[in-house]
Amino acid sequence: MPRLDFWYEFASTYSYPAAMRIEALAEKDNVEIYWRPFLLGPIFADQGWTDSPFNLYPAKGRYMWRDMERVCDACQLAFARPARFPQNGLLGARVALSLNPRERMLFSRALYAAQFAGGRDIADESVVADAIAAAGLVPEPVLENARAPANRAALRAQTEEAKARGIFGAPSFICADGELFWGHDRLEEALVWAATRAGDHVR
Amino acid sequence: MPRLDFWYEFASTYSYPAAMRIEALAEKDNVEIYWRPFLLGPIFADQGWTDSPFNLYPAKGRYMWRDMERVCDACQLAFARPARFPQNGLLGARVALSLNPRERMLFSRALYAAQFAGGRDIADESVVADAIAAAGLVPEPVLENARAPANRAALRAQTEEAKARGIFGAPSFICADGELFWGHDRLEEALVWAATRAGDHVR
Repeated sequence: MPRLDFWYEFASTYSYPAAMRIEALAEKDNVEIYWRPFLLGPIFADQGWTDSPFNLYPAKGRYMWRDMERVCDACQLAFARPARFPQNGLLGARVALSLNPRERMLFSRALYAAQFAGGRDIADESVVADAIAAAGLVPEPVLENARAPANRAALRAQTEEAKARGIFGAPSFICADGELFWGHDRLEEALVWAATRAGDHVR
Repeated sequence: MPRLDFWYEFASTYSYPAAMRIEALAEKDNVEIYWRPFLLGPIFADQGWTDSPFNLYPAKGRYMWRDMERVCDACQLAFARPARFPQNGLLGARVALSLNPRERMLFSRALYAAQFAGGRDIADESVVADAIAAAGLVPEPVLENARAPANRAALRAQTEEAKARGIFGAPSFICADGELFWGHDRLEEALVWAATRAGDHVR
């Protein structure tokens, strides 16, 4: 079965519609999605950015918030602009990485919905705990596991891999042949590439 | 007839497929395109950039060049990466602004094709002159007119208007109701908005 790697960051606005839509679209194209949480912060820091480009460049930020309304409207997704942006998604990324594929997908969608539909702050541990529960798991052991040194190191390695694969923003999609697509509006194109041109194994 | 303002910069890579495709798509949607050349340089300078973001951020630049190949391939457009990037589009923008709508469209497409299909440098006056000739005009008087103080001032005003309308990149599309869309991959969406939701007059 063709595979598509879905690289996402919990603070990323456009990752939200991608996360909510990707499984249904992938099923249609018969593509398996591999959910790969990572952190944009270290990648942005390498570019000299200490904040989101949507804050650093206000015209771009104003456009993005309006565009998010349009995108979510077109996708029939609830959307509420969070009071704080960007939010700290470190704990969420650690939790996501520590879970098995199906739990990771369920947890990640729940955490995106909490932030971008529910207006909650994902830096708050109780919000992360609620998303763990929404994935059908007991929060405390999951949180403990997520904070273990081995899992923290795994997230650092995951972020290094993102950088090595040429990722500079989120969401990003990488096909089995290494082909990179950036942005929610390239999701369909990435799936078609994965299904028809890329082969089955990520190199 | 609904109208869509097409804001473009000659140095902008993604403006090339937009310029080559917009008229045929607009005809289908029964939308009139108003071609509006402007300069990104002053807008980027306001953001602290003294070069293209595709040069300042190498991972983004590498992605863009690969993506341009894919985009042009999908649109069946010739594409050759120019030796120099970005190129100085000042003279081209002055010429485009000085022409009437139909000549402007023909000249602009010819100049984009020279740069991104022909690999020529549009900072070279002879390349601009060839594009003027391709629009069916005699180059010398057009070039003289383009360099006149009133036309130079008009281009500065056009760029100020772009900034005031929230433009931060190219290509950008603005509907009669002020709705802004950024990027070649939003061209179809902008046309649908212009045709169905925006009314006839740019406010």
